[in-house]
Amino acid sequence: MAASRVLRSRVRRPSYLSKLAKAEDLIDLFPHNAYIGWSGFTGVGYPKKLPAALAQHVEDHGLQGKLKYNLFVGASSGSETENRWARNNMIERRAPHQVGKEIAKGINNGNINFFDKHLSMFPVDLMYGFYTKHKENNRLDVAIIEASAITEDGGIIPGASVGASPEIIQMADKIIIEVNTASPSFEGLHDITMTDLPPRRKPYLIMSPEDRIGTPHIPIDPERVVAIAESDYADQTQPNAPEDDTSRAIAANLIEFLQHEVKHGRLPANLLPIQSGIGNIANAVVGGLASGGANFKNLKVWTEVLQDSFLDLFDSGNLDFATATSIRFSPEGFKRFYDNWEQYAPKLLLRSQQVSNSPEIIRRLGVIGMNTPVEVDIYAHANSTCVMGSRMLNGLGGSADFLRSAKYSIMHTPSTRPTKSDPHGISCIVPMCTHVDQTEHDLDVIVTEQGLADVRGLSPRERAREIIKQCSHPEYRPILQDYFDRAEFECLRKGWGHEPHLLWNAFDMHKHLNEHGSMKLPKWT
Amino acid sequence: MAASRVLRSRVRRPSYLSKLAKAEDLIDLFPHNAYIGWSGFTGVGYPKKLPAALAQHVEDHGLQGKLKYNLFVGASSGSETENRWARNNMIERRAPHQVGKEIAKGINNGNINFFDKHLSMFPVDLMYGFYTKHKENNRLDVAIIEASAITEDGGIIPGASVGASPEIIQMADKIIIEVNTASPSFEGLHDITMTDLPPRRKPYLIMSPEDRIGTPHIPIDPERVVAIAESDYADQTQPNAPEDDTSRAIAANLIEFLQHEVKHGRLPANLLPIQSGIGNIANAVVGGLASGGANFKNLKVWTEVLQDSFLDLFDSGNLDFATATSIRFSPEGFKRFYDNWEQYAPKLLLRSQQVSNSPEIIRRLGVIGMNTPVEVDIYAHANSTCVMGSRMLNGLGGSADFLRSAKYSIMHTPSTRPTKSDPHGISCIVPMCTHVDQTEHDLDVIVTEQGLADVRGLSPRERAREIIKQCSHPEYRPILQDYFDRAEFECLRKGWGHEPHLLWNAFDMHKHLNEHGSMKLPKWT
Repeated sequence: MAASRVLRSRVRRPSYLSKLAKAEDLIDLFPHNAYIGWSGFTGVGYPKKLPAALAQHVEDHGLQGKLKYNLFVGASSGSETENRWARNNMIERRAPHQVGKEIAKGINNGNINFFDKHLSMFPVDLMYGFYTKHKENNRLDVAIIEASAITEDGGIIPGASVGASPEIIQMADKIIIEVNTASPSFEGLHDITMTDLPPRRKPYLIMSPEDRIGTPHIPIDPERVVAIAESDYADQTQPNAPEDDTSRAIAANLIEFLQHEVKHGRLPANLLPIQSGIGNIANAVVGGLASGGANFKNLKVWTEVLQDSFLDLFDSGNLDFATATSIRFSPEGFKRFYDNWEQYAPKLLLRSQQVSNSPEIIRRLGVIGMNTPVEVDIYAHANSTCVMGSRMLNGLGGSADFLRSAKYSIMHTPSTRPTKSDPHGISCIVPMCTHVDQTEHDLDVIVTEQGLADVRGLSPRERAREIIKQCSHPEYRPILQDYFDRAEFECLRKGWGHEPHLLWNAFDMHKHLNEHGSMKLPKWT
Repeated sequence: MAASRVLRSRVRRPSYLSKLAKAEDLIDLFPHNAYIGWSGFTGVGYPKKLPAALAQHVEDHGLQGKLKYNLFVGASSGSETENRWARNNMIERRAPHQVGKEIAKGINNGNINFFDKHLSMFPVDLMYGFYTKHKENNRLDVAIIEASAITEDGGIIPGASVGASPEIIQMADKIIIEVNTASPSFEGLHDITMTDLPPRRKPYLIMSPEDRIGTPHIPIDPERVVAIAESDYADQTQPNAPEDDTSRAIAANLIEFLQHEVKHGRLPANLLPIQSGIGNIANAVVGGLASGGANFKNLKVWTEVLQDSFLDLFDSGNLDFATATSIRFSPEGFKRFYDNWEQYAPKLLLRSQQVSNSPEIIRRLGVIGMNTPVEVDIYAHANSTCVMGSRMLNGLGGSADFLRSAKYSIMHTPSTRPTKSDPHGISCIVPMCTHVDQTEHDLDVIVTEQGLADVRGLSPRERAREIIKQCSHPEYRPILQDYFDRAEFECLRKGWGHEPHLLWNAFDMHKHLNEHGSMKLPKWT
């Protein structure tokens, strides 16, 4: 098969070109029940041709539910590929994170055995053989890795994400590389470290977000590369969630808090490295930092994923450096990034998710960690994953990597969310979380558009009063206060009043939501 | 005041002897509402004379509830001092861990504002000023630190624990040193690191448990030492909890698992550094490793606290090195330790709790972490702190430091505990934990005397089947299985079946316990 000129310009290892294949000719490398690893993280840098060819194969031969795979990806892949696999019931097992309607459906109807895991730990647990423990050699059968270019010695230059590719490559018996020629080469933007196992692991000698400790490409054993394929379309990203009044109010409360901490000598004037999640609150916070009002200069970012607002922050002149494992820009954001590559690239570095989310580094740098939960309870536990304690959304992601180890562990959320019948039908502040992903021992600050609760150093009963007062929506404040007052009275009386609960009624607001479309419980019985 | 000869032999800094004082003459240094730090960890190395003098002062002058303090200790202090303070209602605020009947009572009746925090994070959060945020200078007013000796430049040689003393000393305006002359000097047994703040924090360059990275003493600014006092009695430790048939059965299951992992190439033959908690299961596990049967050689230990069984492990010849932040031997254990100092000391190192419990190091070394919970649920969340979700026992301790970051995160527990009316009245395996300190994302293995559930790489529904089958007591197995079957049926039907729960009934076994003295619920309504 002849390589296109553009492909030859990206693949500097000639021997790979002799392995050039069409995706549809590689189906036999994927037997039923195979253990597969893909590149990709937050819907960028994922393989496109092979997954589509495999889906086509299943559809053409009516193999839905018969050809199934154990699929591991650093985080979410392209929803167009994953959704199609899920619709075809091709996924037996999946970890550690996903985004897509069809895959969420498959997880929640029992088709897919999904487990979510700290994104920093997933790659090393994979290396430990924990997820392939029923296989003889503890290894993955085959990996499909997207590259934006290939070096002379066969190493992979990833695209817009690194994710778990280094570890997936280390663990895979066979490797297929999809060289994406529809997007530019990202050469120079990565700092890649491979994973040693204990007792031979070393410290990550990173003292500042801009520190380089690795190589610009993922080194690879060329003999394990069984094929390469050309991939001819770009990452299918979506527009970023727009800011609104609520997210701007949350951001304003948060920025005021950071200014307060600087004033009291607990933060330097240029803050400490910032971690910010995905979504409109994160956008508003970063937008707030970019605007003149906040007046923080020489900021640095240590985070998991960068979205468009960080381009604004760069343009404001207030951001000196940013590092992450993925840049998930919108299509317009990517255009803006490519058009101004010379300006952004020197201030940017992409690392593996094991490094971007490393508790070691997050703690050392004193990161300011910010995340959005499903719900937070009055004692400062948070649910990041399961609605009503049961229905999986996307997975834990890196939330707990950052919130456990950050200097400031901040949860930001609107105080309410709408239901069909009530614009404030769901209170995001609840008596007890229906699922706990972040514990009371991990959170320092809860912030909503109503206000900010600084719970550092507070006992649970003090925390509850503060969270209800500062963060809850006025329509829910009396309901929550009543719960707390009754629980406190009952539990102190019994001599178990450290963290008072009415255990048999703790989920009554959720029950009321389920039955009446609103959490506005008339009374605690 | 004249120094005794033995005191002079311990204090090599002459200028300190001029600051020698009686405890009862130092009361004025402790005004109402002062922020105080003590040395001590797991009931060893705590100050004895000053706390007793302050308690006496309160008792003599009827100041109960009027003279109250904000008290920070690395972990638990001597129960004889803390209990007396609690009985006198002298504690306004306390963190991050405690042991003692009276102090638990004060916490659960609302007298004491207690918060538990990861033991690795507590000292650095203290350094950040998070717990003194209402004070002008973010600092502690006064620290009382027990020393076993003083160096020429005034540095402190701690006793049997290091704990949070380095950070408490860094943060205290005034320091009082209690030199304990009733126990030997521990000189040479410590490796002390002080804490820098971001952006100036550095990696902990520890690649193996025996690595030394610090100084043999805690450096100190002599001008902040306002007084020294002689302390004339030893740490008041208790005998270790004895092994029994249940703990031996748990240990046997666990050791079989470790052998299985070695056989399958996921662990080296000499394992990886072991962390083991306190209590009779931990004793049985370490005892099992010491016995010939397990046949593991050249073991190393990276843990928080060492109890007597580690002396047996040393004596077995199978333990090459152990490091911790505290040695909490029984009185007999300490005698054995002192009598054979030359044999044990070269294989032992005590570090600060920020280092012993450091996620950075625990993850790098690939520690095998083992802990005992209050209860574990069928999806592998665990409650380590609050009975019935509300009543505080001792606090989180280092459980989450180790279980989050260990290579193997293992929870060991008897499958049941007795109530007054039923020898199996409490199932330690429950449908949903009433308080979550360890999440499903953190635990790899659950083990009881019934068997071992290896939940690595399993989805929640797979996990539940495995935990119920392997770990639950036969009398509770059908009850738990029925819960799971009903929850699975209901939730899959509704399309939220990732982690099935009957949310409104999740605590019915606890309710039955509360009302009938047993968790043996006749049926799920």
